[in-house]
Amino acid sequence: MKPVVVRNIKRADGNAIGTMQALGVSTTHEALGRSGLMKPYMRPIWAGACIAGPAVTVLAQPGDNWMIHVAIEQCQPGDIMVVGCTADNTDGMFGDLLGTSLKARGAKGLIIDAGCRDVSELKEMGFPVWSRAISAKGTVKATLGAVNIPVVCAGVNIEPGDVVVADDDGVVIVPKKLAVEVAAKAQKRSDDEGAKRTKLAAGTLGLDMYNMREPLAKAGLVYVDNPEDV
Amino acid sequence: MKPVVVRNIKRADGNAIGTMQALGVSTTHEALGRSGLMKPYMRPIWAGACIAGPAVTVLAQPGDNWMIHVAIEQCQPGDIMVVGCTADNTDGMFGDLLGTSLKARGAKGLIIDAGCRDVSELKEMGFPVWSRAISAKGTVKATLGAVNIPVVCAGVNIEPGDVVVADDDGVVIVPKKLAVEVAAKAQKRSDDEGAKRTKLAAGTLGLDMYNMREPLAKAGLVYVDNPEDV
Amino acid sequence: MKPVVVRNIKRADGNAIGTMQALGVSTTHEALGRSGLMKPYMRPIWAGACIAGPAVTVLAQPGDNWMIHVAIEQCQPGDIMVVGCTADNTDGMFGDLLGTSLKARGAKGLIIDAGCRDVSELKEMGFPVWSRAISAKGTVKATLGAVNIPVVCAGVNIEPGDVVVADDDGVVIVPKKLAVEVAAKAQKRSDDEGAKRTKLAAGTLGLDMYNMREPLAKAGLVYVDNPEDV
Amino acid sequence: MKPVVVRNIKRADGNAIGTMQALGVSTTHEALGRSGLMKPYMRPIWAGACIAGPAVTVLAQPGDNWMIHVAIEQCQPGDIMVVGCTADNTDGMFGDLLGTSLKARGAKGLIIDAGCRDVSELKEMGFPVWSRAISAKGTVKATLGAVNIPVVCAGVNIEPGDVVVADDDGVVIVPKKLAVEVAAKAQKRSDDEGAKRTKLAAGTLGLDMYNMREPLAKAGLVYVDNPEDV
Amino acid sequence: MKPVVVRNIKRADGNAIGTMQALGVSTTHEALGRSGLMKPYMRPIWAGACIAGPAVTVLAQPGDNWMIHVAIEQCQPGDIMVVGCTADNTDGMFGDLLGTSLKARGAKGLIIDAGCRDVSELKEMGFPVWSRAISAKGTVKATLGAVNIPVVCAGVNIEPGDVVVADDDGVVIVPKKLAVEVAAKAQKRSDDEGAKRTKLAAGTLGLDMYNMREPLAKAGLVYVDNPEDV
Amino acid sequence: MKPVVVRNIKRADGNAIGTMQALGVSTTHEALGRSGLMKPYMRPIWAGACIAGPAVTVLAQPGDNWMIHVAIEQCQPGDIMVVGCTADNTDGMFGDLLGTSLKARGAKGLIIDAGCRDVSELKEMGFPVWSRAISAKGTVKATLGAVNIPVVCAGVNIEPGDVVVADDDGVVIVPKKLAVEVAAKAQKRSDDEGAKRTKLAAGTLGLDMYNMREPLAKAGLVYVDNPEDV
Repeated sequence: MKPVVVRNIKRADGNAIGTMQALGVSTTHEALGRSGLMKPYMRPIWAGACIAGPAVTVLAQPGDNWMIHVAIEQCQPGDIMVVGCTADNTDGMFGDLLGTSLKARGAKGLIIDAGCRDVSELKEMGFPVWSRAISAKGTVKATLGAVNIPVVCAGVNIEPGDVVVADDDGVVIVPKKLAVEVAAKAQKRSDDEGAKRTKLAAGTLGLDMYNMREPLAKAGLVYVDNPEDV
Repeated sequence: MKPVVVRNIKRADGNAIGTMQALGVSTTHEALGRSGLMKPYMRPIWAGACIAGPAVTVLAQPGDNWMIHVAIEQCQPGDIMVVGCTADNTDGMFGDLLGTSLKARGAKGLIIDAGCRDVSELKEMGFPVWSRAISAKGTVKATLGAVNIPVVCAGVNIEPGDVVVADDDGVVIVPKKLAVEVAAKAQKRSDDEGAKRTKLAAGTLGLDMYNMREPLAKAGLVYVDNPEDV
Repeated sequence: MKPVVVRNIKRADGNAIGTMQALGVSTTHEALGRSGLMKPYMRPIWAGACIAGPAVTVLAQPGDNWMIHVAIEQCQPGDIMVVGCTADNTDGMFGDLLGTSLKARGAKGLIIDAGCRDVSELKEMGFPVWSRAISAKGTVKATLGAVNIPVVCAGVNIEPGDVVVADDDGVVIVPKKLAVEVAAKAQKRSDDEGAKRTKLAAGTLGLDMYNMREPLAKAGLVYVDNPEDV
Repeated sequence: MKPVVVRNIKRADGNAIGTMQALGVSTTHEALGRSGLMKPYMRPIWAGACIAGPAVTVLAQPGDNWMIHVAIEQCQPGDIMVVGCTADNTDGMFGDLLGTSLKARGAKGLIIDAGCRDVSELKEMGFPVWSRAISAKGTVKATLGAVNIPVVCAGVNIEPGDVVVADDDGVVIVPKKLAVEVAAKAQKRSDDEGAKRTKLAAGTLGLDMYNMREPLAKAGLVYVDNPEDV
Repeated sequence: MKPVVVRNIKRADGNAIGTMQALGVSTTHEALGRSGLMKPYMRPIWAGACIAGPAVTVLAQPGDNWMIHVAIEQCQPGDIMVVGCTADNTDGMFGDLLGTSLKARGAKGLIIDAGCRDVSELKEMGFPVWSRAISAKGTVKATLGAVNIPVVCAGVNIEPGDVVVADDDGVVIVPKKLAVEVAAKAQKRSDDEGAKRTKLAAGTLGLDMYNMREPLAKAGLVYVDNPEDV
Repeated sequence: MKPVVVRNIKRADGNAIGTMQALGVSTTHEALGRSGLMKPYMRPIWAGACIAGPAVTVLAQPGDNWMIHVAIEQCQPGDIMVVGCTADNTDGMFGDLLGTSLKARGAKGLIIDAGCRDVSELKEMGFPVWSRAISAKGTVKATLGAVNIPVVCAGVNIEPGDVVVADDDGVVIVPKKLAVEVAAKAQKRSDDEGAKRTKLAAGTLGLDMYNMREPLAKAGLVYVDNPEDV
């Protein structure tokens, strides 16, 4: 890893980002072929936010938030900062001062594979964070990392400018070159689901709506009337 | 495991279920002799719900929700679906479409030893779920399991028709043949607690109310005035 | 460990406690030199409380809450009970009856390195608890422990009368002999942060406000214009 | 749970047990249709043992090994003791004295969903144990449990007399009424594998031996020559 | 925490240490009244060592091993170094160079609530380490900690000079002022166990040897002949 | 993710690989600037192996080992297979038959972010595996993944042909374009360490050898003679 900051990155298509923000993580993740999802230990520090935006990536050393300060300067309105670490760590590398600064730059939120602190202040500010832990543990500013290089965060590889979608279900990353295609698929999936939801709410069974009875029987599923018949 | 669906199950007594829903998990668990509690990793996806009902049980393969579709048809109003897996898994096997369908059948909620997704939608619908994880990870419909056979979920063995009680404290299972007896014991315990609560709120010490001073002294507890006397 | 209850403990300075309650966990933890923080698995059972007070300490056996009953008598208004265990345990050793009793004594809250139950009732009562788990698992009253001796709770050693500060960021312990000094440092830190927050909100970068550009360059940080220049 | 000891249990067929001991956990688990496997946190305290035998089951309270003493009397030569707990626990509930006694009864080993201690002594004695933890934490003899009732251990429900198979790959439980059928299937599977192993060792690819190329192509798998062709 | 090194510490009695090393962790832990045991995540990096000695304590910042270098100078032959951290961490803070240096000082081993690396080299050298993880992750030498002040390591508070006993069962700490008394109790316990072991090996049941039958009956244990009698 | 197999990959320099295999994980990881290390949950199934080789990468669905069969054909002598999964999983996706086949192709070992089974057979064969779990849980061959595309395994992104180094300390990945440079740095580091080891073994303190006394004093470290002077 070279200690480097990349100034100009290509950001994913804005319209596609808007679509994905409207549809949320689960639908986007399905449209991407069920990949790109961060591990489920990544949880929002407060419930109810749903954001999407291009990633400004940070590789940090555990317990050291120096590079987050550096990365804020590279953020444009609408961006989402994504921080990966070189080792597992739960220290509180991000708090309300950094949140104030990121918000002032117009950034939409933060994804960090480490800890977050000042969570009640960040909630009050309406600044959303997804993290692996909440911890007041303070950090140093001693070792370099990098900004806007590819980083692994919570099990997913992210290139700068890739789309980040985050809501109460978790965080998914869409490679920027697939953004338009995935947004379209996600929209189609969502449209289809609307009709299905109406039918299911009216009492139609998925077994019938999806024509599952025949393949279930073929796979060998047997119905018996009573427990003692098993 | 045979791939089977049992159609007719004996459900626990309805009055007993009503009592347990009114009293909640901790009281019911005590009345059952402190057993039947699922592991504490099972958490509600939203706070505040308290439900009780007979179990419709599902044994699923990890990452495969085919049998949940099958099991919905076996649910009657008031039932609670309980899903165990053949291996540890956190994939989001249940979402708002399945929630819509279960709700349309009159089911009260879901207990799943795996992941759940669409949590903000499910919260808005008022459909309660207890799960081991929240995850957008999509699933397949490829392998058979079984419905209404005994399953292990979060460390507890459940027979179809057993009583499920779930609230913010967790999930407890009461065998159906003990339901009436346990409900009565739970009611008695709750009645006793009301009087105790009033006394404690008025400043009476548990030490006195429970007559603990003598057994404590007998067991060897010593009071000293200052730290240096230890 | 001797089964002993110490009746008279020296409590930390009240003014210092008031200051720390107003400033919260993260600021206090920084003022203490980034030490004294409990492990991040300690979480509030409901969000939004911020308390500080002198510790009444309890050493309990896992799954046994007898000593909590004993310790309540030793609590004065404003105290916070801190319970450590002799082995890892998630059983629900504390519930609404004990909460009612502690509240009646004027105690501000509970910190327990084990499980808590009746969480919706405790939330309704406004009694805050920080615990490692939520669990309905019932406990016994069979084995002695000790009250007001030094205990380890969630990785931190606590002397009776030390200051406990707890909020949504976690729990920090300040030794009572350092309380006045730490409160002063925390206040100074908070005052400094106010000015910084205003500047950052106005768009000033931390890079400039903290004069980081030169040390970053000295440490070897390089800026490039494009990804292919890395 | 009633505090009861069942004296006479039906044990699974001895020949079937012998076959499964010779074939090991992975093969038996496959023959059972990929079910019945305990969670992978169950590990041997020393490597290299492979045992099979009928289960004498114990339900214990966490940190209390009284019922293990009771259960030893119910063991016959060749039996394997299986201990489940009413709550998660890692205390060292079993050590070399209990191991000496169990060995004197002719029991083959122990499966315990809790901790084990005296591991170097047990290794020297050649007495195999599978546990969720190694811990010197001592226990009490204070609360009743039960012997030879169905128990859940590491996620699996076990009836007394069911077959336990345990080796370096983990622990699997075979219901006694399926023992003969599963042993036969396991033997057939093992015989088939011998021939396959020889072919694979000689360089034949699984792709060809299992005729996978066509279904892979049908499922849509594409081969490209170079990374840039993806 | 002040950045301080304490040069002269009082070490526990040498004879008592010798006795405890001969008897091991489980027996010593029992003699101490079942307290003082580190959490079971502390495991030896290689099996078979059993050591005891006075503690030289280190408080380190996570991912920083500067203070270990400092502490080596304070070690005398027979000492055991004990390292606690201010936050949870698994980085490899100790390797074969530090091991060579500690061994040259005559230290018997290391207990570290963080990661260890070079484990095959350390095993070859015969230098025993108990750690929470094995990890090659490198560390820095940037922040001060302290040497020979009280530290919390894996859930236990340790004063400099306290006795550390470590073997395959884990790590236990005996306060130095209790060392002689605990060693004597441990020896007595061990002598008693010898006779018990002989009886148990000859087939005597613990039920009879410990006279458990009457208290079990009194507590309500019932024997039935067959499962259907439950 | 497209279901694709890339046939021709560029492999890292063979001499560099040889050097890194001789030096091991910790030294290589340091030479890479303390990055590229897999999470410490990746452990060898048997101790003592140290291997290095170019990566053949596999992206698999959890609980499905179809793509491992496909990938074996792409392995050349000396290669190491690296398997990442699209979701957290501990199923035993690799066993002795696949091991036999990989060994027949000349592959040196396997790195898998999932479970492994038949561990005693693999040990006997001398085929090394690093995995996140040991589990007998069987898998299916139902869903496509990809071979020789970039994958994330245990928190690290790996390109096909990158260098994998694995030993008892864990697993590190070196990008192929940095292989020669890193191997040279690692060799230099190892040479330097030889001289240091000799000095330390002779009793020289790291404090003196690394000239740490002055920077420690500058950073504020204070020596006191006795505990009461703190």
